[in-house]
Amino acid sequence: MTLADILPSLRSSLPAHLEPGAWPPAARWGGRGELLVAGAGLAALAEAHGTPLYVLDEAAVRERCRAYAAAFGAENVAYTGKALLTAGVAGWVAAEGLGLYAGSAGEIRVALAGGVDPSRIVLYGSAKTPEDLAVARAAGVGAIVVESLSEITRLAATAPAGQRVLLRLLAGPAEGEAFGLRVGTGEAATAVARIAGQPGLRLAGLDCSVGHEIERFQRYETELRRIAEFSAHIHRAHGAAVGWVDLGGGHTDHDFALEAFAGRMRAMMTLESERRGVPAPRLGVSPGRAVVGRAGVTVYRILSVTARRDGRLLVATDGGMTDCPAAQCADRHTAVLVGRASVAPPVPATVLGRHNDPGDFVVPRLELPADVHPGDLLAVAGTGAYHHARASNFHLVPHPALLAVSAGRARTLLRRESIDDLLAREC
Amino acid sequence: MTLADILPSLRSSLPAHLEPGAWPPAARWGGRGELLVAGAGLAALAEAHGTPLYVLDEAAVRERCRAYAAAFGAENVAYTGKALLTAGVAGWVAAEGLGLYAGSAGEIRVALAGGVDPSRIVLYGSAKTPEDLAVARAAGVGAIVVESLSEITRLAATAPAGQRVLLRLLAGPAEGEAFGLRVGTGEAATAVARIAGQPGLRLAGLDCSVGHEIERFQRYETELRRIAEFSAHIHRAHGAAVGWVDLGGGHTDHDFALEAFAGRMRAMMTLESERRGVPAPRLGVSPGRAVVGRAGVTVYRILSVTARRDGRLLVATDGGMTDCPAAQCADRHTAVLVGRASVAPPVPATVLGRHNDPGDFVVPRLELPADVHPGDLLAVAGTGAYHHARASNFHLVPHPALLAVSAGRARTLLRRESIDDLLAREC
Repeated sequence: MTLADILPSLRSSLPAHLEPGAWPPAARWGGRGELLVAGAGLAALAEAHGTPLYVLDEAAVRERCRAYAAAFGAENVAYTGKALLTAGVAGWVAAEGLGLYAGSAGEIRVALAGGVDPSRIVLYGSAKTPEDLAVARAAGVGAIVVESLSEITRLAATAPAGQRVLLRLLAGPAEGEAFGLRVGTGEAATAVARIAGQPGLRLAGLDCSVGHEIERFQRYETELRRIAEFSAHIHRAHGAAVGWVDLGGGHTDHDFALEAFAGRMRAMMTLESERRGVPAPRLGVSPGRAVVGRAGVTVYRILSVTARRDGRLLVATDGGMTDCPAAQCADRHTAVLVGRASVAPPVPATVLGRHNDPGDFVVPRLELPADVHPGDLLAVAGTGAYHHARASNFHLVPHPALLAVSAGRARTLLRRESIDDLLAREC
Repeated sequence: MTLADILPSLRSSLPAHLEPGAWPPAARWGGRGELLVAGAGLAALAEAHGTPLYVLDEAAVRERCRAYAAAFGAENVAYTGKALLTAGVAGWVAAEGLGLYAGSAGEIRVALAGGVDPSRIVLYGSAKTPEDLAVARAAGVGAIVVESLSEITRLAATAPAGQRVLLRLLAGPAEGEAFGLRVGTGEAATAVARIAGQPGLRLAGLDCSVGHEIERFQRYETELRRIAEFSAHIHRAHGAAVGWVDLGGGHTDHDFALEAFAGRMRAMMTLESERRGVPAPRLGVSPGRAVVGRAGVTVYRILSVTARRDGRLLVATDGGMTDCPAAQCADRHTAVLVGRASVAPPVPATVLGRHNDPGDFVVPRLELPADVHPGDLLAVAGTGAYHHARASNFHLVPHPALLAVSAGRARTLLRRESIDDLLAREC
């Protein structure tokens, strides 16, 4: 029992509960309803920089990088840039010693702008464009992932001599709608032979993303056995050991025991390799959402509030589906009023965006103080991954600014887009 | 029975069937597998302008504008810009005498850039930002839609004297998650009284979007009765007749009998109004997708092809979910190979994008010639609405160019975005 249980009137004057695991680890309430992230007040930032506003906790991102580096060794970890990539974020990743998985020429360019060592960049993608390959070649990227038989000749023709490549394996039993080389059908073995036949290419390892949001180890173990078996085949057929296996990303960003996962995978890979008489490869991972998801918060201005007959408040903000793409929002977001203390009791509410679209939810179900009104500020948690990255200009709404906060201070990573920016491509 | 049934070998050398209703009405096959839209060859455009490429048939857009104008009177039709808005498109709409429904400051700015008469612009939206209202005021827009009680005072404070407003009604029985003033609960009547109490505002009509993709008339009729009843209330309470009722959009873009719909709605509104002793309002509509959806085609370059064990080809293009947002793609798209004639038999295929994402479908199920290979061009039909409008830069992939084609010639409405454009907001 807490003091608030004994004195219900006290409860309503306490700031809203911050849902565990949802907010940046160092988020905490300041005075007068201000929510501090890395010591910077969200309401103050919103007043100074406008809304909607993306705020990213630099220390939270770096701590996740360090956690992965501690578990796998920094040289075996590459951040997957599609989750969120700006030059500033790339710079943090590089400073923590991680590499970067890039899925396009644009991602390579931004990684380079952030100071990522080109030899730590891996270019992947089932459909690499000529521009992707040209930018990768000019940069001298460390590795390129081969995802279909048909691209081996093309890579050999366009890549610099000695280009290291990884082979993307489909090691699982199911056949979905993803590119990659199937193990067990001869397809992956054919790819290895074709790569060996190209003097300009060097097989540096295997890329084995085994899925997304996997929280249990068992499926990884099954895949690892298949990978070890295939590595032994390569060793037998070509006399070369597989030096590196990337297990992909997809770990949820909290409650996932990274150290235990890494230790168990390494032990298992060592065992399975020894059993087959081949050297064990280095094991790496390429997380995206797990690095940045929880570090991000979005601040909105509330513009309209209306009450339904059932008492639920419909609350419309100045953002929504453009900055918070619908598929990412689902039910997983949580939000709190920031910038003023309210003593009003909580009531059920639905937070919508400004885009007049049935899918324009920010938070479908939450509680907000009954006195929520236009002009209030709302902070939404967990928006670091796939929000800026997948933002659109639907309704010709410009993109928000993206700020980094650290030790009580903010700096702009991406300036707010203007309507003039939107008009710049008109002919 | 056709010649191709008698001589199956002939069938495979015929160009692919163009699915009726899916393509711009004047699309037709040229020689050597070239597909002509408004007389311009898609493969030739792709060679000249790069891929992915949005192509919009100007005549097809204008014909839809004229069909609406013929059915309702051009002065009663406003194009809803969120479906697709560039200055060029706004110019066509204005030239055909239509107005424009704008949902943001950005849409107003682009409408003005295209030459739309400000008095024909309606600003709507459940969450209008201060910038939206400032731009609307500076432009002198013809009307602003009131969507909640709380914004009436705010509008009165910010709008110029005499600002015409429309009242957004929720006339249906269901209570969803949309803003608007409910009929039958006193809420809409309160809004009318409040507007009447603001000397700066003038109630010009009702905005009654009744849904989306409605193909039968019955639901419209039920709503119209409620609207007529409410109009009679306004007449009794305030002595003023409702001059204008907008029925919204949501008509599918073909097989919808516009003339019959307009005639029946007018007859019914006249009957219901006479029965209540009030003048019948003008009836208007505000279509979006129905004007531009079918006029648009996207051309992609195929970059990878791989065969699954079940024989289905996985085909990856140089575009996908960034230019063809997933929610819009579903199963409704159809596509054909363009730029070369193939005599290979058709095989089942799935067309994916380049973004390495489980949702990155372009066309989930179709048939393509068995010899489809990297380098081929693919044209996808029906991409005029909500493709450019909802495009993102996921994976730091720049937006395609948008061309207008007319009488065999192309002009660029929006130039292709560059990676430098993407880097321009970096600080």
